[in-house]
Amino acid sequence: MKYFDNSATSFPKPPEVGTFIQNYLAVGGTYGRSGYPRAAESTALVEQLRDKLAITFGIDQPENIAFCANSTQAINTILRGIKFGKQEILISPLEHNAVTRPLEMMRKTRGVKFHVISHHKDGLIDIEGLKKQLNSRIGMVVVNHQSNVNGLVQPIAEIKKAIGDIPILVDASQSAGGIPIDCNQYGIDYLAFTGHKGLLGPTGIGGFYTREPESIEPLIFGGTGSNSSSYDMPTSLPDKFQAGTPNMIGAAGLLGALLANITVQHSRSNFVEMLQHLNSIQGLELFCATEIEHQGETFSFRYTNENPGNTAFRLYQLFGIETRSGLHCAPLAHATIGSLPHGLVRVSLSPFHTLKDLEYLTNSIEKARLDHKF
Amino acid sequence: MKYFDNSATSFPKPPEVGTFIQNYLAVGGTYGRSGYPRAAESTALVEQLRDKLAITFGIDQPENIAFCANSTQAINTILRGIKFGKQEILISPLEHNAVTRPLEMMRKTRGVKFHVISHHKDGLIDIEGLKKQLNSRIGMVVVNHQSNVNGLVQPIAEIKKAIGDIPILVDASQSAGGIPIDCNQYGIDYLAFTGHKGLLGPTGIGGFYTREPESIEPLIFGGTGSNSSSYDMPTSLPDKFQAGTPNMIGAAGLLGALLANITVQHSRSNFVEMLQHLNSIQGLELFCATEIEHQGETFSFRYTNENPGNTAFRLYQLFGIETRSGLHCAPLAHATIGSLPHGLVRVSLSPFHTLKDLEYLTNSIEKARLDHKF
Repeated sequence: MKYFDNSATSFPKPPEVGTFIQNYLAVGGTYGRSGYPRAAESTALVEQLRDKLAITFGIDQPENIAFCANSTQAINTILRGIKFGKQEILISPLEHNAVTRPLEMMRKTRGVKFHVISHHKDGLIDIEGLKKQLNSRIGMVVVNHQSNVNGLVQPIAEIKKAIGDIPILVDASQSAGGIPIDCNQYGIDYLAFTGHKGLLGPTGIGGFYTREPESIEPLIFGGTGSNSSSYDMPTSLPDKFQAGTPNMIGAAGLLGALLANITVQHSRSNFVEMLQHLNSIQGLELFCATEIEHQGETFSFRYTNENPGNTAFRLYQLFGIETRSGLHCAPLAHATIGSLPHGLVRVSLSPFHTLKDLEYLTNSIEKARLDHKF
Repeated sequence: MKYFDNSATSFPKPPEVGTFIQNYLAVGGTYGRSGYPRAAESTALVEQLRDKLAITFGIDQPENIAFCANSTQAINTILRGIKFGKQEILISPLEHNAVTRPLEMMRKTRGVKFHVISHHKDGLIDIEGLKKQLNSRIGMVVVNHQSNVNGLVQPIAEIKKAIGDIPILVDASQSAGGIPIDCNQYGIDYLAFTGHKGLLGPTGIGGFYTREPESIEPLIFGGTGSNSSSYDMPTSLPDKFQAGTPNMIGAAGLLGALLANITVQHSRSNFVEMLQHLNSIQGLELFCATEIEHQGETFSFRYTNENPGNTAFRLYQLFGIETRSGLHCAPLAHATIGSLPHGLVRVSLSPFHTLKDLEYLTNSIEKARLDHKF
């Protein structure tokens, strides 16, 4: 399996994704809107998914999970739905444009200020530095759980402990499904996730959890199948955040993915050894966490003196290896780790990759380096 | 086929929906974000869908079509993305909460005023009355193309002719796929659609067309796979309106639906005769367009002295017929046609219904009336 772009979207999906989608298509029905059994069954499917995600993410109140199209929409709903007033926002140094673009818009239109948190060279948050940045103006701390560039995993529980009562928004786009998340135990106030990456589900479905649903105004207004006589959105959950027909296909597929029995086909040490091997290749710069304990299964690299776009192209041409080069919609992360303006070649793993796949990847990267005349 | 809730979501879908989804799942890849052929193919799939929709809707610039989750999100993007300032909005008397709820929020938070257009008893816009409502303050006219309650189809071309340069937003949620739409010919400035109703595609994908993309600020900010070094959204189309990973599954399924060969299994006169038969049943009040030429294949009814919820329940219990009762997320429409507070029983057809299905429906509604002791 030569597909190493699982941070963009995971592939392959477990067969249950397709099966659950086909089963839904054979029955039909929409969510929370009609009284006959077919509609009740499709509503139950969505609620089963919500319950399953609550267990997955350590959430006590499943109704505090709302579904939407993807984590970008989830993050927009949270950031733009909160009245920050004169409060300021601290963001991790590895944020994606899903965070920086809404914040930049809020800065321009509403004067909301945001600052980057103190950090180490690899983007790991410097807890002592963070503590010094805290003051009464800070209204939220936003942390990308696992970087989509160098795969660094931030210590959420430790960060939340450091910031105390200041709410934390965790962007779990890359981590959900791969790295444990326990909203209760870590004290997560807001969590954004998507279904089509580490959770191995289909595109088109994601969502968010909030401990404080009354803190957020909805982003989308419209029919909910509830309180229909009113022109106001219902305040009940999850309807408050779910205007319009939900993505039933997405819900069915994601439920299938979550109920699938996934056995990871490589070990942690297979992965660590691969990183060590890559790190030993001359003329290759590896971008990953300094400490292996903070490393998720995504990393980036570049060859000295070769544009990453060209490297990615050659890796595909020579060896059929699919990676993603460039800035990965995360210019802040690339600025932090020193890979602007051309970015890097990103490699992101799937649980279905075997040791053989990792060896093929490492050898290909090594050969592509040697074969190339700089 | 006893499913008559196609205005909620159409069922069944053509087999091509499932086939195209399975074919996509077997290949994977996301949109506009990586350079290898798999990613180029999935990007091409989305562009093929965009081109096909442009042809379907009489649109010259496919790039002016943006995809999102559903028509509710599409309408929110348009209404809330336009700077109305002190301009006022005229809305048809049959609008859904997908229009009235965002407008009510805009009224409360931004002081945007909206008024209902002059109309006939069935909700048909009174063109002469509309002309009298026009003045220099009117910034937009919003028209539900086909009512999701009584199925009334508004004459879009005639309305646009009457309002001249004032932009028109057409909500084609119910009409797309069933009623011809020609944006160029009718002069439609903004069109919102969803994939999972008359277009017979899956849930989770819809979108909008705009003749004036610079008039709308994006609703969702985030990664687009383009102009990634900037914290600002790109101004290029369709990226400006497509932050976050698009719904590939939805795009594949909707393309399958649009490429399917659909033969409508009943004739217009079968439908008209059914309405005439229902209209002749004593103690049954039919809610549809006064003139048959304005009638789409959705209508509502109630039995005198029976709550519509009970009627729908009995129709299912006695005959297996699936309808939707209540307010259909459209309290304004029910206020217009005089069916508040309890609403109506709605019947909405699929192209796959045969004459036999229509006869079974009519006979069941008649029997359910006779069997009931009021």
